[in-house]
Amino acid sequence: MTTDVRTTDVQLDRSTRTEGGRVVRVEITPVAFRDPPLLNAVGVHEPFALRSVVELVTESGTYGLGESYGDLPHLQRLQRAAAELAGADVFDLPELRRRVVASLAADDGRGGHGMSGMVTGSATVDRVLSPFEVAALDVQGKLVGRPVSDLLGGAVRAAVPFSAYLFYKWAGHPGMPADSWGAALDAGALVDQARRMVDEFGFTAIKLKGGVFPPEEEIAAIEALRAAFPDHPLRLDPNAAWTVDTSIAVGRALDGVLEYLEDPTPTIEGMAAVAREVPMPLATNMCVVAFDHLPPAVRQGAVQVVLSDHHFWGGLRRSQGLAAVCDTFGMGLSMHSNSHLGISLAAMTHLAAATPNLDYACDTHWPWKDPAEDVVVPGVLRFQDGAVAVPTTPGLGVELDRDGLARLHEQYLTCGLRQRDDTGYMQRVDPSYEARSPRW
Amino acid sequence: MTTDVRTTDVQLDRSTRTEGGRVVRVEITPVAFRDPPLLNAVGVHEPFALRSVVELVTESGTYGLGESYGDLPHLQRLQRAAAELAGADVFDLPELRRRVVASLAADDGRGGHGMSGMVTGSATVDRVLSPFEVAALDVQGKLVGRPVSDLLGGAVRAAVPFSAYLFYKWAGHPGMPADSWGAALDAGALVDQARRMVDEFGFTAIKLKGGVFPPEEEIAAIEALRAAFPDHPLRLDPNAAWTVDTSIAVGRALDGVLEYLEDPTPTIEGMAAVAREVPMPLATNMCVVAFDHLPPAVRQGAVQVVLSDHHFWGGLRRSQGLAAVCDTFGMGLSMHSNSHLGISLAAMTHLAAATPNLDYACDTHWPWKDPAEDVVVPGVLRFQDGAVAVPTTPGLGVELDRDGLARLHEQYLTCGLRQRDDTGYMQRVDPSYEARSPRW
Repeated sequence: MTTDVRTTDVQLDRSTRTEGGRVVRVEITPVAFRDPPLLNAVGVHEPFALRSVVELVTESGTYGLGESYGDLPHLQRLQRAAAELAGADVFDLPELRRRVVASLAADDGRGGHGMSGMVTGSATVDRVLSPFEVAALDVQGKLVGRPVSDLLGGAVRAAVPFSAYLFYKWAGHPGMPADSWGAALDAGALVDQARRMVDEFGFTAIKLKGGVFPPEEEIAAIEALRAAFPDHPLRLDPNAAWTVDTSIAVGRALDGVLEYLEDPTPTIEGMAAVAREVPMPLATNMCVVAFDHLPPAVRQGAVQVVLSDHHFWGGLRRSQGLAAVCDTFGMGLSMHSNSHLGISLAAMTHLAAATPNLDYACDTHWPWKDPAEDVVVPGVLRFQDGAVAVPTTPGLGVELDRDGLARLHEQYLTCGLRQRDDTGYMQRVDPSYEARSPRW
Repeated sequence: MTTDVRTTDVQLDRSTRTEGGRVVRVEITPVAFRDPPLLNAVGVHEPFALRSVVELVTESGTYGLGESYGDLPHLQRLQRAAAELAGADVFDLPELRRRVVASLAADDGRGGHGMSGMVTGSATVDRVLSPFEVAALDVQGKLVGRPVSDLLGGAVRAAVPFSAYLFYKWAGHPGMPADSWGAALDAGALVDQARRMVDEFGFTAIKLKGGVFPPEEEIAAIEALRAAFPDHPLRLDPNAAWTVDTSIAVGRALDGVLEYLEDPTPTIEGMAAVAREVPMPLATNMCVVAFDHLPPAVRQGAVQVVLSDHHFWGGLRRSQGLAAVCDTFGMGLSMHSNSHLGISLAAMTHLAAATPNLDYACDTHWPWKDPAEDVVVPGVLRFQDGAVAVPTTPGLGVELDRDGLARLHEQYLTCGLRQRDDTGYMQRVDPSYEARSPRW
């Protein structure tokens, strides 16, 4: 009975307008870069973080870059998708998506979320599509001579503010010397960590990764940060380590102190129960990680802020769809981060710049990365006053550092890690450790 | 307490990347084109339809086109906004919006909806912004050598299906000879009208503008159309002429016959009451015409299909935000039309082509326009099998016909009409006529 417009979709004849945008080759390079022993609700960061670097080469010789998770199941999906992309036009993003969908037809959807088990509900297609979409937009921008932010509608800010991302941490990896940050296992050390991070990067907002110590210790840490940084908005993210009751108690204890409380407890239902009782907005990158999660979250009033993340929301344009939903339904918008390299930072910066309703400084793990390790030529992405200036050159504005890429790929080959496993790493140190959500 | 990222917005220094995209001049030309005496729930179309043609000229000499309503209050707003646009970069759509907002600072928001009082809830900023955004995208496409559909993410269909838009009508305007379509005041004449329209344009879906005669007559008309066109999806749009009870009765009577029932009754609450009782989806372009209307409509389950319209949803990119909301919340998406010229048809076609979740053939008043009257060079926009091929040349793909524009502007000056007033026109013929919603 319906017109069924969708089934009239046809392969377009783009021969009259393609000017070098057809994909001839896609390289997927797994890389590993050093990562400090950062503690979280499921364990501790391993000595190396894994990422995939996507290089999409077009017939004109122009290349585009994307970056994503490096876990083996994800890497294999990227490779299968990449094998389908030759001949696709970088301006035809729907075709890119169709090919990614086709490459996943026989996929069981298991694993490869890149988040050490903390987030498992994101959509496989969106996760796999993301780095290819970013790379396609990078090529588009280079071919037409415009920065990616312009392809997304135009930048509303010249620089994108990020937050200082504090972690409880060990002094060094087991059996290794201490890193330059040293241990941070109590409130005083976190204040020191924050001070260094704010001094070096100029951050104007502070986030603490919690869920590591009992809630009362983390409340004390936030209060210490508040005393030391009276004007910095503060956030606490225990990664769903708490029950509803504990979440409510913490929320009430930190009334007037937190800008938002992030994922105190698991599930949309749990978050909704907490939201009804605490005074501050609840934020999430755990219970709303795909478009399917938005209707129940809106219906239940479960979250007031969504932390977008183009790596699992299907790329930059799909993330703009998420922004439209948040704007329409009165939800705030912030941005989530995993350990990442310069391609992701560039993509995050362009997206944030072109998102009018970005309400908060974005997360980034950038300060925890060794500046000597990256896959992009250094110099473009710099923090000033806690913000990164939006590149104004064509595309993402970053160039591949092929020597850096080779070094980090070699490190991937030798490091032995193939999947992120914060829990397993912790258990090798403490065999009695169990990942539990909620824990308190 | 919040980081207040929005207030860090600054004027970007785009000097390094502007290549001819800066606006140097904006022309707003009101035009009038002949319109048949089409009947609707509030009266009858006057002898001329009014539109505004926006021409945005950039420093490179490249121009972009937009088209919007021609009612005087709207025209004056467009002129005030146009006066603010010199120096703006066509790639900086947020800046375009800021300037439009500034031009409306002292505006009372009254009038200028272009819909003869049938739709009054659309957002003034979005309505005024729309033709400038379309014109900016047209320039963008021309400067970078890509069709507008590519700037919107890429076309998912090579041709966009439209529906046959049937109207009850008089044979001719009072005191004038009959037009080639003749009178259509009963089911038989509507079937003849549909047959000619389907023969000439190849439409594969049929919509009847109702709300003109008592519901039982319009039910009979739909049944006659069903008998004559067993395979064409059918829609009925009485423009909120019915009470909730009448709407439910009609909906039940047309179970299995209608693809969707459009705006049977006024208000979100009214539509929700009908939706609970009728078997087919309810569509709207009356109770959900701005982003603010989406949360209550979703909460109440009031509509199952939104008819988007870039003329009041803030342009093409904002309409993609609407599409994202519909996709996320499981609502279907169709497209609304007013009497329009070729610029609007081109914009509608690019938008529909780049909207994956467009579920239905779009509305268009195109068959009611005299082919000799337009403001674009003829030949690009052609109907084949009820669909318009998406232009593949840069920008919108249509060129301004300056002679045609001059003729229709002269017609605007001499026709005497300055606001659409279907009700007043009907009352000059029938002084006892009253516009009432609901009427039955």
